[in-house]
Amino acid sequence: MKFYDCSTAPSARLVRVFMAEKGIEVPTREVDLRQGEHMSDAFRAINPYCTVPVLELDDGTRITSTQGCWRYLEETVPDPPLLGTTPTEKAVVADRLWRIDIDGWQAMTEALRNTARGFTDRALTGPDDYAQIPDLGERGKLRTARFLAHLDGLLADSAYVAGDRFTAADIMALVLVDFAGWLKITLPPDAAHAQRWYAAVSARPSANR
Amino acid sequence: MKFYDCSTAPSARLVRVFMAEKGIEVPTREVDLRQGEHMSDAFRAINPYCTVPVLELDDGTRITSTQGCWRYLEETVPDPPLLGTTPTEKAVVADRLWRIDIDGWQAMTEALRNTARGFTDRALTGPDDYAQIPDLGERGKLRTARFLAHLDGLLADSAYVAGDRFTAADIMALVLVDFAGWLKITLPPDAAHAQRWYAAVSARPSANR
Repeated sequence: MKFYDCSTAPSARLVRVFMAEKGIEVPTREVDLRQGEHMSDAFRAINPYCTVPVLELDDGTRITSTQGCWRYLEETVPDPPLLGTTPTEKAVVADRLWRIDIDGWQAMTEALRNTARGFTDRALTGPDDYAQIPDLGERGKLRTARFLAHLDGLLADSAYVAGDRFTAADIMALVLVDFAGWLKITLPPDAAHAQRWYAAVSARPSANR
Repeated sequence: MKFYDCSTAPSARLVRVFMAEKGIEVPTREVDLRQGEHMSDAFRAINPYCTVPVLELDDGTRITSTQGCWRYLEETVPDPPLLGTTPTEKAVVADRLWRIDIDGWQAMTEALRNTARGFTDRALTGPDDYAQIPDLGERGKLRTARFLAHLDGLLADSAYVAGDRFTAADIMALVLVDFAGWLKITLPPDAAHAQRWYAAVSARPSANR
């Protein structure tokens, strides 16, 4: 296996933290997004979507999404389980992950890419250029803030985002909260449940990845 | 179990087709989205995100995303498998599903909700109102068309979207193509691989759901 990473990319961090929780070490190749290496012909031959993370399997198959990387690693290194154990728990984890992705992660990405000067005409990842849409940037900021506030309710009755066990949903929420900080969007200070959770997940050794 | 459905909603159709492929029958309650039933207090108590599908499990847990519903049904009724068999196949299915969701489904939803008069101030699903962003609607149409053209390449070397077996990725792509038709966005007529696939998946009995 080979892992195509970028140390500053939150998308790749989702997989790094997941691997750390499972104690998986994979030979890693850093892709220099700042220098535009992901748009080079050489990298397009590896991933035509021009993104990290990429997990290259021993048979040559390349997995080009966080969700795909997680699934492969969960199936091949089951312990500790990070995508649920019982059918109900697996469904709740999948449910939470999709919710965090659509209402949180995509909103945060919209906020960043439609407002930052460095992303002019790069409002979306991928091979095609798209102009920034300022109204979408502002909506993204509002939605990100609302989603971080919403996390408090998800954590009112359980230790972790998808129940009483640490799962990939906590990884995605953690990386989202940390990255939203760059946009100066934070967990509300009075969100006691979310603040308790954030302190706990940030203290795990995997959070350093 | 109980399934909260809406016969005209593509999101709910994703789960209906999945259940049909597995031969699963679940007592169903139709939610009248046209009359705004999903925004009522009664339905908010069932799903605060104000969307279908919802799968209510026998222990009372409510799963409120397609991805969560699919995971529960796959784990409890494994045959035929629709989310992959080997670790690599499962990863490829997850990879394709995420790609179709973000590059196809979300784009199609952006196109519809930011341009249709019926969605004024309802540019996103959920409890909060958001104004339409016309530029996002236009971008959504462009991206939907590009994604449907891209499907041809995904099908050049395999019978189905995620390999040689029919999976949930085919369900999502089928429902996407059918719904994009309402926006007058279609598979390119000369996309031979995609046209061959579309004819095959549309002919399955499950496609009538």
